[in-house]
Amino acid sequence: MDTITPATIDQRGALAARYGAAVPDAGPWNAQIALLLSHRSVRGYRPDALPEHTLQTLVAAAQSAATSSNLQTWSVIAVTDPAKKAALARLSNNQHHIEQCPLFLVWLADVARNQQLGDAAGVVMETMPWMETFLVAAIDAALAAQNATVAAESLGLSTVYIGALRNNPAEVGALLGLPPGCAGMFGLCVGYAAPGVTNAVKPRLPQAGILSHDTYAAAAPELAPAYDAEMLAFSARQDMAAENWSDKVLARMGRLRGLSGREKLSAVLRGMGFPLR
Amino acid sequence: MDTITPATIDQRGALAARYGAAVPDAGPWNAQIALLLSHRSVRGYRPDALPEHTLQTLVAAAQSAATSSNLQTWSVIAVTDPAKKAALARLSNNQHHIEQCPLFLVWLADVARNQQLGDAAGVVMETMPWMETFLVAAIDAALAAQNATVAAESLGLSTVYIGALRNNPAEVGALLGLPPGCAGMFGLCVGYAAPGVTNAVKPRLPQAGILSHDTYAAAAPELAPAYDAEMLAFSARQDMAAENWSDKVLARMGRLRGLSGREKLSAVLRGMGFPLR
Repeated sequence: MDTITPATIDQRGALAARYGAAVPDAGPWNAQIALLLSHRSVRGYRPDALPEHTLQTLVAAAQSAATSSNLQTWSVIAVTDPAKKAALARLSNNQHHIEQCPLFLVWLADVARNQQLGDAAGVVMETMPWMETFLVAAIDAALAAQNATVAAESLGLSTVYIGALRNNPAEVGALLGLPPGCAGMFGLCVGYAAPGVTNAVKPRLPQAGILSHDTYAAAAPELAPAYDAEMLAFSARQDMAAENWSDKVLARMGRLRGLSGREKLSAVLRGMGFPLR
Repeated sequence: MDTITPATIDQRGALAARYGAAVPDAGPWNAQIALLLSHRSVRGYRPDALPEHTLQTLVAAAQSAATSSNLQTWSVIAVTDPAKKAALARLSNNQHHIEQCPLFLVWLADVARNQQLGDAAGVVMETMPWMETFLVAAIDAALAAQNATVAAESLGLSTVYIGALRNNPAEVGALLGLPPGCAGMFGLCVGYAAPGVTNAVKPRLPQAGILSHDTYAAAAPELAPAYDAEMLAFSARQDMAAENWSDKVLARMGRLRGLSGREKLSAVLRGMGFPLR
């Protein structure tokens, strides 16, 4: 089942695809790392079913990620029902690939299971109302989901995260029957890429823009022009509308409408059983 | 550099180690997935240095994870200065492995870089005060960190996440020189496991306790007794104090002191430039 081939472990090519001209120093390398570097989000899927029990493999990978104090404050819902996928697509900015993909995973911050243990034992769960309890659940859901993503890509499947699941978290919760203390953090489409939709690897900021040594020094505005040029070249190669990073950041973060309604998130989460105190 | 051997791809053994008696249906499998299943947290390190430029490889893997709208709202600080590692250990519940490991990575939710673009362009960044903006930064930091963890383990290195970094986020921020809009979410020790400290793979809840199909059905309290028995058997095998999952959840989440001071997290984050509105 191993889909890694010698061609995928070309280190210099992989680093150049990810960083453009700003290639970092080449450290240790192997096929696993080549797989991680090759990630790209895919927004179009063939309807083909996944191999039997692929879901169980992805969940086993997800559960193998670290979880704070082994509390396991996350869950996942595998959505395959076409009507539910269509409803989730409508609630997530009409992203059609949610309907196309054979498997749509909804990743949940979930303290309901832990609360049940308290209820059964007659113990008041004093930590539940706090921001920390929500945050640890959201982070653990993300660690788990990334392991599932890596596992899926190792099998030749494609994925894309759907942050727009947070545009309407209460409606998503009602659709999926979520109990209090349980909220969808993001979705993940899983399937086979449709012909012609696989993008090239997207360049990222140079490592100097992200990585500091001992003292924070990562926010370097002088790095933006070169990266903007890399992103313009990337969008030209992909026949996408010209887009540089700085303009995208300003458009997405400078206007409240960039939140697509997510400015209500804290109020909605409080209503779903996360007081965020 | 590839450390995967045929012995590591024993699917049935890997699933039994992760699930005990509750082995899920066996789906597709390969060496990458075997590596993910083999994860265990390691809390003791040899002082040996990492191969040259390992840090650059781990960061390249981290930056290859998905990031919401390519905003890249995270950073990482590589801490190798012994005095800073000692100070971070003191701030993180005196976890000695932070001092032992040759590389301690501090993963940051970071919107400072994006704010700088707004400042330079004279654009008011309207989305900054909202909970969503903090949450996307925390989730993206987690996705990135998990890729770095997978890359490290593929190289034969060990890791452990340090959530206790959130016990004293303001002090961590001062120590590392973090600007407003930047806060440590968790640490990650990276290094070679010291002799005798490598635990076995820890069992997790059965998949039926985590995974639902189309409608939420994951919080099944009837699963706890069998899992408690698995965890008791695991702690006996590891010569650890007897610990079952239900009791641990009640101890950790039932008492406010289980938060180790993190009940102040929302107030501290607000002071660090995340209004969490």
